[in-house]
Amino acid sequence: MDVGRAFLIRCPEDEDLVKFVEDFARKNGINAGIVNAIGTLKNARLGYFNKEKGKYEEIDIRGYRELLSAMGNISLKNGDVFVHIHAVLGDREGNTVGGHLIEGKVFVGEVFVLELRGEKLERIKEGSLYLWPPYREKH
Amino acid sequence: MDVGRAFLIRCPEDEDLVKFVEDFARKNGINAGIVNAIGTLKNARLGYFNKEKGKYEEIDIRGYRELLSAMGNISLKNGDVFVHIHAVLGDREGNTVGGHLIEGKVFVGEVFVLELRGEKLERIKEGSLYLWPPYREKH
Amino acid sequence: MDVGRAFLIRCPEDEDLVKFVEDFARKNGINAGIVNAIGTLKNARLGYFNKEKGKYEEIDIRGYRELLSAMGNISLKNGDVFVHIHAVLGDREGNTVGGHLIEGKVFVGEVFVLELRGEKLERIKEGSLYLWPPYREKH
Repeated sequence: MDVGRAFLIRCPEDEDLVKFVEDFARKNGINAGIVNAIGTLKNARLGYFNKEKGKYEEIDIRGYRELLSAMGNISLKNGDVFVHIHAVLGDREGNTVGGHLIEGKVFVGEVFVLELRGEKLERIKEGSLYLWPPYREKH
Repeated sequence: MDVGRAFLIRCPEDEDLVKFVEDFARKNGINAGIVNAIGTLKNARLGYFNKEKGKYEEIDIRGYRELLSAMGNISLKNGDVFVHIHAVLGDREGNTVGGHLIEGKVFVGEVFVLELRGEKLERIKEGSLYLWPPYREKH
Repeated sequence: MDVGRAFLIRCPEDEDLVKFVEDFARKNGINAGIVNAIGTLKNARLGYFNKEKGKYEEIDIRGYRELLSAMGNISLKNGDVFVHIHAVLGDREGNTVGGHLIEGKVFVGEVFVLELRGEKLERIKEGSLYLWPPYREKH
């Protein structure tokens, strides 16, 4: 794929980080890309994928946490933009907690989005997950 | 914004990581960009922003830690280059600690800087923080 | 350096993440670049570099962990592609552990590779590590 537009933007306070990036991508016609963010999140909900149960176990983090890293990507799922982010959070002693970012409101959110252009990148249902075709099968 | 020059460089031993990236950006005329780094830091000082007090609480980490992730950005503050990095560190058992990177000397520092070109990205005082205008207000 | 091709790909299940990225870079003629990944790893082995002993202490993580962040780079070592990744992992309570990623099999692996073109970036033996020349000496 080719590198397209780049965006370094501030997510407004009280917006959900994942929803914000999804809306942003949708409005700007970004169908594939990567996302990085730092800042502060409040009341985050994280997920751990339980392979046996085929679903995410949820971890609720009450209060404010430094968003130490949010790393993820933008692709398509059922024809619509889908954002997948994993996050690591830190408390006032520096203790960390992390998981798949299900939700979390932004106090401060500094977000980098890099658009990728080229072939369509679409998630397909595979068991209980939506995944891209693995690299090996495509080449 | 548009993607500009890319730099994958080694920060010399004993230099402060944040100061190094700021100097590097200043000398290379980079007014906006992103930063990623891995390596080993010694005697890092991390911050947790206390919203009530409007200031960072500091967390001192003595000794050597793996720099598991340093994620951040470059923009302007008072007309000069300003670097904002959040870091996660690991000890010899893999225990992690993280926060806003206030300072930390590099033992090994492998730094990626990606320049972004286009509109000026400037931090403005907002309460006790310096932040970019939120995305919503600009569009 | 200049930004080259970009790849957002899925590492097939059961492949080792570091080996996969090395093979991928080798096959695609990528001699320098950056790597980011999220997903789920199983049976990861992490390293903490012990400066006194000049070698990595190893931390074995049995079972499945969310791959919260994998951050790293691609360069050359002894003329061949070498991938250096630091990782942070999370368990079902969100507890985190991290280090230099020695090995780890992918359950789900969503990998971003950004090629960098230009000057050759080669690791040279320096004590017990292989490192790039520090930035200061080159300019």
